[in-house]
Amino acid sequence: MNARIDLNADLGEGFGPWRMGDDAALLDIVTSANIACGFHAGDPDIMVETVIAARARGVAIGAHPGFFDLRGFGRNRVQETPKRIERDIAYQIGALQACAALAGARVTHVKAHGALANLSNAEPAVAEALARAVAGVDRSLILVVMPGLPAERAGERSGLTLAREIYADRAYAEDGTLAARTMPGAVIHDAGEAADRVVRMAGEGAVFTRGGRRIPVVIDTVCVHGDNPEAIAMARAVRTGLERTGYTLRPFAEI
Amino acid sequence: MNARIDLNADLGEGFGPWRMGDDAALLDIVTSANIACGFHAGDPDIMVETVIAARARGVAIGAHPGFFDLRGFGRNRVQETPKRIERDIAYQIGALQACAALAGARVTHVKAHGALANLSNAEPAVAEALARAVAGVDRSLILVVMPGLPAERAGERSGLTLAREIYADRAYAEDGTLAARTMPGAVIHDAGEAADRVVRMAGEGAVFTRGGRRIPVVIDTVCVHGDNPEAIAMARAVRTGLERTGYTLRPFAEI
Amino acid sequence: MNARIDLNADLGEGFGPWRMGDDAALLDIVTSANIACGFHAGDPDIMVETVIAARARGVAIGAHPGFFDLRGFGRNRVQETPKRIERDIAYQIGALQACAALAGARVTHVKAHGALANLSNAEPAVAEALARAVAGVDRSLILVVMPGLPAERAGERSGLTLAREIYADRAYAEDGTLAARTMPGAVIHDAGEAADRVVRMAGEGAVFTRGGRRIPVVIDTVCVHGDNPEAIAMARAVRTGLERTGYTLRPFAEI
Amino acid sequence: MNARIDLNADLGEGFGPWRMGDDAALLDIVTSANIACGFHAGDPDIMVETVIAARARGVAIGAHPGFFDLRGFGRNRVQETPKRIERDIAYQIGALQACAALAGARVTHVKAHGALANLSNAEPAVAEALARAVAGVDRSLILVVMPGLPAERAGERSGLTLAREIYADRAYAEDGTLAARTMPGAVIHDAGEAADRVVRMAGEGAVFTRGGRRIPVVIDTVCVHGDNPEAIAMARAVRTGLERTGYTLRPFAEI
Repeated sequence: MNARIDLNADLGEGFGPWRMGDDAALLDIVTSANIACGFHAGDPDIMVETVIAARARGVAIGAHPGFFDLRGFGRNRVQETPKRIERDIAYQIGALQACAALAGARVTHVKAHGALANLSNAEPAVAEALARAVAGVDRSLILVVMPGLPAERAGERSGLTLAREIYADRAYAEDGTLAARTMPGAVIHDAGEAADRVVRMAGEGAVFTRGGRRIPVVIDTVCVHGDNPEAIAMARAVRTGLERTGYTLRPFAEI
Repeated sequence: MNARIDLNADLGEGFGPWRMGDDAALLDIVTSANIACGFHAGDPDIMVETVIAARARGVAIGAHPGFFDLRGFGRNRVQETPKRIERDIAYQIGALQACAALAGARVTHVKAHGALANLSNAEPAVAEALARAVAGVDRSLILVVMPGLPAERAGERSGLTLAREIYADRAYAEDGTLAARTMPGAVIHDAGEAADRVVRMAGEGAVFTRGGRRIPVVIDTVCVHGDNPEAIAMARAVRTGLERTGYTLRPFAEI
Repeated sequence: MNARIDLNADLGEGFGPWRMGDDAALLDIVTSANIACGFHAGDPDIMVETVIAARARGVAIGAHPGFFDLRGFGRNRVQETPKRIERDIAYQIGALQACAALAGARVTHVKAHGALANLSNAEPAVAEALARAVAGVDRSLILVVMPGLPAERAGERSGLTLAREIYADRAYAEDGTLAARTMPGAVIHDAGEAADRVVRMAGEGAVFTRGGRRIPVVIDTVCVHGDNPEAIAMARAVRTGLERTGYTLRPFAEI
Repeated sequence: MNARIDLNADLGEGFGPWRMGDDAALLDIVTSANIACGFHAGDPDIMVETVIAARARGVAIGAHPGFFDLRGFGRNRVQETPKRIERDIAYQIGALQACAALAGARVTHVKAHGALANLSNAEPAVAEALARAVAGVDRSLILVVMPGLPAERAGERSGLTLAREIYADRAYAEDGTLAARTMPGAVIHDAGEAADRVVRMAGEGAVFTRGGRRIPVVIDTVCVHGDNPEAIAMARAVRTGLERTGYTLRPFAEI
């Protein structure tokens, strides 16, 4: 077996004097970093430092734009037109590109955060705004999407290169979206279970829904988290599980 | 006579629901626009709209980065290391580059705002940070500086193309800095006087100090303001004065 | 005839270097001011200055709390629990109380802004949060509400003194809410029409819906706006109309 | 021996999704809490939660106002007039008073944060602004000051009740200010040393300078920190040291 796969995580989600998660530990596990761009978290200093740390480990650098909502960590939906959302996203991508340039690095991909990501999978007009922002700033950027949902379709229509991701620690609803966190079993807490599940989904090229459905999808990357020690342990278990199965862990982007 | 000169002004200095100055009027007068980038003023929507308006009139598009100080409009000095200031500046330049890209336009220059501009002319380490940020993001960007001061020297050392500017409405101290606003005569309020003065400074290639000194400098651009109807009238008078003298008004940058 | 009525408007809706509307003109017309408290607009300096100006004219001082959304001017709904919304409101009321104390004045009422006001009339749990915040901070504060809607009911249950308001420039839907701005005729632009309408509603003690219904309500105050010269003219026309009809214009609160 | 003394610490210094320090541990040690009020840290939800936690342990509740500088954690000096600084401080005190009222508690004291505290001990006009803000909002509030410096004198002139504090972990310069952190020995890292030092200063009623001077002062409270596990351990050692010496640990305020 000679397959390759990517592990991605959100990083640089501090602001000013505050930090979130253990970025250093996570950067030793993942192959792609989605770096907050200052709207829901992140500031220029944290952004450059995170770029430097990612680059030093061969981790691909991506923009992680969110809504302009620092206090709410991008969980609040901004009531804007798609055109304004497009501009918010473009601004953030450009800001990270410049921060990366300072560090001699390059942004390879874009993944939406929080309420913006949710909205891009619920409202086609927002999905189009996301794709237009990425294509408008730099057509060589890869857009990370959940397969089978509006953002993927908008990305395809725009001609962008896409990376399809699955979640290591979340159950899927029957339509291929993530099951709401409030539902029993929606969040997977056991590292071994998460790792097994990722290996099976990657092997079968499908996501498994709570109801037992198997939805065939392309899988380029697996999303893991690093907010707390348990999450780091789970990320490590997922990586180890994939490596033992024979996967080569590599960024989906050329860096 | 076949000389050319540029008129520059700060634009897009609103935020959210608020606006400042009459950008539309000013865009019919100036040849280069310095667009606020979200730290002291400006947001992605205003930035893209300002880019579109500038582009439609053939006005060159520049980044106008400031300190992260919205409430104080960038007048508060941020107590950061030069390295962090460099990153703040780079972030803002990149953000505007992406906003410009959405509109099919290109950023040609950078001019620092408020306390950041003052500090770059008072502290060589900040001047170097400014030059490093510009060069680090895109060496083809032109840095706008006041001649004879630290930011010009840092720009020269960094090998950046520079545009030297004079102020239409401000008196100069003996060292070539702007006379403090609190000094009598520091701010010129009469449009005709400002226009005459600019024509003379441009013609002689020198700034005139309050004390009567004449400091020879290169003059590529003249800074005007648009905060109120009087400022707009003065900007128009300066333009008319230069045109009558035979100057061609053109951006210092190729656009 | 010896009836009294109040005219209220939102004031102090600038931030940092920005201003909105002509507060001085409006303060000569209205009898109660709803002052922004720093979350959607307003800062301590603007708040104290607005308190001073209101006090000098005998205009009652009220808190105008909104969601924590400066860029969106409080138009974005914050996705928070009612408990957190309650705390956001209390914070803002207390902040204005202290600003008023500095100026030797006193806050007499509270009126919610923007998305917070809308939500308090759409979701009973938010209406309860609003009433709890007001009662929790100071039971002597008067809560301004639209009659017939959830915020009024929550205020009644909490035992707060209420001031019921009608809008001078907005048409009403059949359920007593404001007709959506996107509907034809939803916003009244003619000053004379607005004045006539207010006089009739006040006289009959009822709001008139677009469909021709007449909903009997208590009317203590009329909301006018001051965002632009037309709005100021309309506010003045409404005041003149009420005065000619014999109303005494006075704050609903004792000041 | 029957002396009493207070231990104070800064709490509630998170924002939105971020937290700083171990407030729960610290609340078991100190007798007075200085709670961030939203300008350099803190938000209404964190403020109310911190009030509730403090109240449950009999810890006195104080306002900890800072400059409007979230990203810089109040370390940046805001270039404002004393009048505007006064208003910023009043706003924050009132905001916390309302948050405390929601929780059935009361604010007893005020202690300035970061650059605002430093400035109040360097510039008499800012010290006066601080005292005016406190007195203007509520004359029964106790102002926490470092003895022998401008804020103490301004507080005395204003007739406010004062609480004089010493620092457990900082060396003093010859003028009674804190030695700059950059000087060798300026920060005390050993918990036992800090405890011994506090016991001696409290016993002698004096601060000891680096140069060996002994400046007699009134000592009402000792400032400790909780940013990291070492700081918590030091705070606990200071408390234990004082208790063993016979001090009763109690808030300086009646709560």
